[in-house]
Amino acid sequence: MIPSHCPSESLFAQRLQRLARALKREKLDAILVWDRANTRYLCGFAGSASLICILPDGSSCFLTDSRYIALAKETIRHLEVHEIKPPAEKFLARLLHRRGIRKVGFEEMIPYSLYRQWGKALKVQLVETTALIRSLREQKDRTELAAIARAQRITERAFERVLALCRPGRTERALARAFLHAIEDEGGEGPAFDPIIASGPNAAIPHARPGDRALQRGDFVVFDLGARCGGYHSDMTRTVVIGRASERQRRVYDIVREAQRRAVAVVREGVLACEVDQAARRWIDRKGFGRRFRHRVGHGVGLEIHESPSLNSDNRSPLRRGMVITVEPGIYIEGWGGVRIEDMVRVTPGGGEVLTRWPHRLLEI
Amino acid sequence: MIPSHCPSESLFAQRLQRLARALKREKLDAILVWDRANTRYLCGFAGSASLICILPDGSSCFLTDSRYIALAKETIRHLEVHEIKPPAEKFLARLLHRRGIRKVGFEEMIPYSLYRQWGKALKVQLVETTALIRSLREQKDRTELAAIARAQRITERAFERVLALCRPGRTERALARAFLHAIEDEGGEGPAFDPIIASGPNAAIPHARPGDRALQRGDFVVFDLGARCGGYHSDMTRTVVIGRASERQRRVYDIVREAQRRAVAVVREGVLACEVDQAARRWIDRKGFGRRFRHRVGHGVGLEIHESPSLNSDNRSPLRRGMVITVEPGIYIEGWGGVRIEDMVRVTPGGGEVLTRWPHRLLEI
Repeated sequence: MIPSHCPSESLFAQRLQRLARALKREKLDAILVWDRANTRYLCGFAGSASLICILPDGSSCFLTDSRYIALAKETIRHLEVHEIKPPAEKFLARLLHRRGIRKVGFEEMIPYSLYRQWGKALKVQLVETTALIRSLREQKDRTELAAIARAQRITERAFERVLALCRPGRTERALARAFLHAIEDEGGEGPAFDPIIASGPNAAIPHARPGDRALQRGDFVVFDLGARCGGYHSDMTRTVVIGRASERQRRVYDIVREAQRRAVAVVREGVLACEVDQAARRWIDRKGFGRRFRHRVGHGVGLEIHESPSLNSDNRSPLRRGMVITVEPGIYIEGWGGVRIEDMVRVTPGGGEVLTRWPHRLLEI
Repeated sequence: MIPSHCPSESLFAQRLQRLARALKREKLDAILVWDRANTRYLCGFAGSASLICILPDGSSCFLTDSRYIALAKETIRHLEVHEIKPPAEKFLARLLHRRGIRKVGFEEMIPYSLYRQWGKALKVQLVETTALIRSLREQKDRTELAAIARAQRITERAFERVLALCRPGRTERALARAFLHAIEDEGGEGPAFDPIIASGPNAAIPHARPGDRALQRGDFVVFDLGARCGGYHSDMTRTVVIGRASERQRRVYDIVREAQRRAVAVVREGVLACEVDQAARRWIDRKGFGRRFRHRVGHGVGLEIHESPSLNSDNRSPLRRGMVITVEPGIYIEGWGGVRIEDMVRVTPGGGEVLTRWPHRLLEI
């Protein structure tokens, strides 16, 4: 039986059909899909050097070079698979010309150089179209949710193992290594991103890289961790104290915890992305730490660790059911330390369903 | 003391000066450097979300957002460091306008979307200029060579440890894990790329991914391995036999070995890139396996695992002293297996200096 986190052929076919429908709606004759996360979304193929040409008549095709052709032919069943000798422009130009195609969507994240090559060689009108696939990918189906949840379970088990190693004298780097090993032992494909393990004053740096600093009694330690599973990412942050928390540590922690709770509480289909950010920001502001919360409250998670939607204070797009987002406010005080608490939340019509199981209470270890 | 593979401030300053000179030569008023490998090359900064604006008057500046500003200010001394609130266009437009700048170089690999934003906001003439920095980066200085050599030593020690685990029944995946652990134990920053360990029929796939296949007596096993050190990559391939090699295995192996030797022998400053490819290809052709060697013979290695120059059969650019290239012919026979042998070679006026120390003789293990 196909494990539940592994997309089946019919799921890929559905996604392609949805995209083909969007293509008609947008009055496009074809879409070229180059981005790796997007091609993976549409056919499961994870190699580089590939391109999908979405055509409206169900004859969409997958192009790759000699290095990947055997693998592609073996694994892709719902697309015509063609071997091309790079660059692909010649083949593409013929393909599009033969079908009388005039108006072709492309993803705005393609390199400028590729845009130029296509512009010269294809003799079609190129139309920006990233939003189409992004919009499809925002809403996760059951299979995707299962993969994200599985990645999160792996992260939590690995975090548990890392916490058991936390004691004064242990370096951030040693803990990061232990995390990477644990991810692997627990069956993860790998880390979702370079783990952030930031102790003492380093905890004031939101994107710190684990270094040679040894944990000391009284440190805040921020753990921002994730694993990959079936190509899908998880993302969680917890902050712990080495030894007993001080009054001030407890106060700052509780503010972040309450800000995070408030932000999660507003998550629901139809709520604007900025409202989630504002719910956390307002609370932190009110408590006098507004200047110390210097990043957006969260982002979508899926085949990429950061994907749409962005939960910042300007984004007035409504949340849609099936989105999986992070909610991760923080307070960072230079020279002293910082706190961030992050859960993954699924958007439903009735509210936010928290996918992270690890509790929020302040751990003193 | 600064370890020899760690670029010093003055080295960065030299690189910037060289680029500023190229800028004048090309009659540009400024260059925007966005690519991560390029920004790392020019100032050592490895974080994302950063941009260097090269100006001719020595007032070049580094722009990053709030997440990285503290780290940037601490580590970058030879550039003005500015914090910007993304998107950077407003700041950039003011900066360029204030100096009366009209003609700005950019890297062709930037996303099309960024090109569009710059085009709209900056009101300057944008000029393709990737070749300038690529050309600088092709020729490695002493510090870069030391980093590449160190990464290669780590790779060889890790490979030795993996070979000790090779026996029938062991899976490709288990060996890949062991390699990743060994890289770390030996002090590498990480792997240079996902290791390729391809056994039996999988050895016929040039970019195979390690899977659950267990080694069997009589298998060819292709190991394509590398480590990262100070941001620099190494790249080596060796093919071994599990048990005793058959007649046919020995024959194919010897053809690849001789093709590799011939290709390395032609490496020298001034030789065309395609001549290196042709030296290997001709030999393999002559032995009747021309159709089985399906990729270019090599590529530059440095801050990226694949960088300029490309050693393919069409590239008529001459090799330049200080380039570090791979030479890696192969023969791949579907259903049977394959052989690839790869060394890193430094280009000098007198010939190619092989940086890979691991011998070429066929290991039977």
